[in-house]
Amino acid sequence: MIEFRKDPIIGRWVIISTERGKRPSDFIKSEKDIDDISSCPFCWGNEKFTPPEILSFRQAGTQKDSPGWWVRVIPNKFPALRVEGNVTRNAEGIYDKMSGIGAHEVIIETNYHDKDLFQIEDKLAEDIFRAYKERIVDLKRDIRFEYILIFKNHGSNAGATLSHSHSQLIALPMVPIRIKQELLGSKAYFDYKERCVFCDIVAYELKNPDRLIAENEDFIAICPYASRFPFEVWVLPKRHDPMYEDIQEGEIKSLTQIMKSVNKKLNIALENPAYNYLLHTSPLKSSNLSHYHWHIEIMPKLFGVGGFEWGTGFYINPTLPEEATKFLQEI
Amino acid sequence: MIEFRKDPIIGRWVIISTERGKRPSDFIKSEKDIDDISSCPFCWGNEKFTPPEILSFRQAGTQKDSPGWWVRVIPNKFPALRVEGNVTRNAEGIYDKMSGIGAHEVIIETNYHDKDLFQIEDKLAEDIFRAYKERIVDLKRDIRFEYILIFKNHGSNAGATLSHSHSQLIALPMVPIRIKQELLGSKAYFDYKERCVFCDIVAYELKNPDRLIAENEDFIAICPYASRFPFEVWVLPKRHDPMYEDIQEGEIKSLTQIMKSVNKKLNIALENPAYNYLLHTSPLKSSNLSHYHWHIEIMPKLFGVGGFEWGTGFYINPTLPEEATKFLQEI
Repeated sequence: MIEFRKDPIIGRWVIISTERGKRPSDFIKSEKDIDDISSCPFCWGNEKFTPPEILSFRQAGTQKDSPGWWVRVIPNKFPALRVEGNVTRNAEGIYDKMSGIGAHEVIIETNYHDKDLFQIEDKLAEDIFRAYKERIVDLKRDIRFEYILIFKNHGSNAGATLSHSHSQLIALPMVPIRIKQELLGSKAYFDYKERCVFCDIVAYELKNPDRLIAENEDFIAICPYASRFPFEVWVLPKRHDPMYEDIQEGEIKSLTQIMKSVNKKLNIALENPAYNYLLHTSPLKSSNLSHYHWHIEIMPKLFGVGGFEWGTGFYINPTLPEEATKFLQEI
Repeated sequence: MIEFRKDPIIGRWVIISTERGKRPSDFIKSEKDIDDISSCPFCWGNEKFTPPEILSFRQAGTQKDSPGWWVRVIPNKFPALRVEGNVTRNAEGIYDKMSGIGAHEVIIETNYHDKDLFQIEDKLAEDIFRAYKERIVDLKRDIRFEYILIFKNHGSNAGATLSHSHSQLIALPMVPIRIKQELLGSKAYFDYKERCVFCDIVAYELKNPDRLIAENEDFIAICPYASRFPFEVWVLPKRHDPMYEDIQEGEIKSLTQIMKSVNKKLNIALENPAYNYLLHTSPLKSSNLSHYHWHIEIMPKLFGVGGFEWGTGFYINPTLPEEATKFLQEI
């Protein structure tokens, strides 16, 4: 069964996705060997272990679903949502639910089993960020979808079940609560100041570089002022741009460069940490928003989140963002 | 340095608490031995390792800060917030901060090093929930505080650094974002229906017991309809009661009984899982709210949260709450 269920108090949607039928015993000592290359479905030669590819960047003359690619996009074999069907909304007693419609894709970032972003050649790595753009542009045509989130889980502490470097895309039939908060907050700021809060952050951090980790023609990377986690890093475009899919060719090169640089610094400082990153962009059906600005949030997973964070929505961060910045600047 | 910093986009407060001065190397391979009894600061005889006790339930004739207690409340030795000082609000460039004022206490739940709640005798366990009440009543007199969260981290995957059973209390000079969401949502429901959403949930789940795990005179325990996590359990009072500190003597006995029962079921089903629980109650300065209802949310930590959850605020739950309920009912 796959369905969205709505929390009746705060209105948060939860995806109940039981295709894989988890019993209590499935959660006990479920440490898998995620490092077995011969059976890795994301390695060259194992394309048959995945659903047919949706998009790939590959050597001329090589065939779909065979070796020769360096970035490959596939439907998730165990999708959290189902792509076929209509979006229906129903009551279940006093509760509300929606059909579990959505897209769930995997972007395999490299053919090498054990390379993280910073170890991938620029030319090839750029195609990861090109793939993000192409997939958003394509899925945007499906009028059932309201939002697309691209994210990466790296390392089992960050929720990854396969070690081969990959990111994921989920297209949703509603705008997530977290994005709504960003839209509301940035709108309130814009209404008061008549400026985009993200543009203000970019300008301020460039002028006061205590939290500036890296900069190039098109992007900055900072430890945000109110970092939730030690060594949290945000990458922001300098140009006001609400939608990731509007990224230009030159900007893809700059984004790749700064993402590789941050990835390398974090890998050295924290010795190959587990991490998540997520790409926040405008809802698919929004117009060109003056108050919103796409960005990437990178969060090393150094310790588990506890009851305080679950209970408040606040975070306790034991590392001053300015000190984390100093460590990362020096690498 | 301890301070609150506000995220300029969504307004989320983060506590930057660097008293313990974490450097990158502190996060690398930081697996501690949390099971060494002789040095456990929460065991009898080791009271000198903690700050002086604030409250204890102990054998007649025994001295403060010496053995003889079965529940002991102490200030956290490494507090995330500082209790002395005024609440000041300041600008830092374009950002906003507040002084890191608050209380951070530890409720040691038993003198036995390795007992979880269900293994503690009823009479003694009741004093844990009595201690929660007494500490809220006491701290409520401090007009600087707006909210008190009581929570428990059990197991290192749930953020615990000591294995000896304990919960924590944090008093804050603001109402957390998560509580604001519950207050807003339940208010909207009340305005429309003229009923408390929590009361409606209690009535509905009693009538349709597919998600009902346990029930007694005063409480129900359910797997909530939109459970975020497999085997998530909520405990709700049957009587409409916005404030935990108004709990009656008889209710403390019923609460202890149902919390022990749920704890035992989860321990058996999931083989001593890591878990968090949190007590959500009204803001300290709110009047007797018709739309809000205190409750406890228990969340087994069976896997890490990934980029999708961080990016959306939504959750993907692979276990149907009704199936989790069936497993727990049968234990």
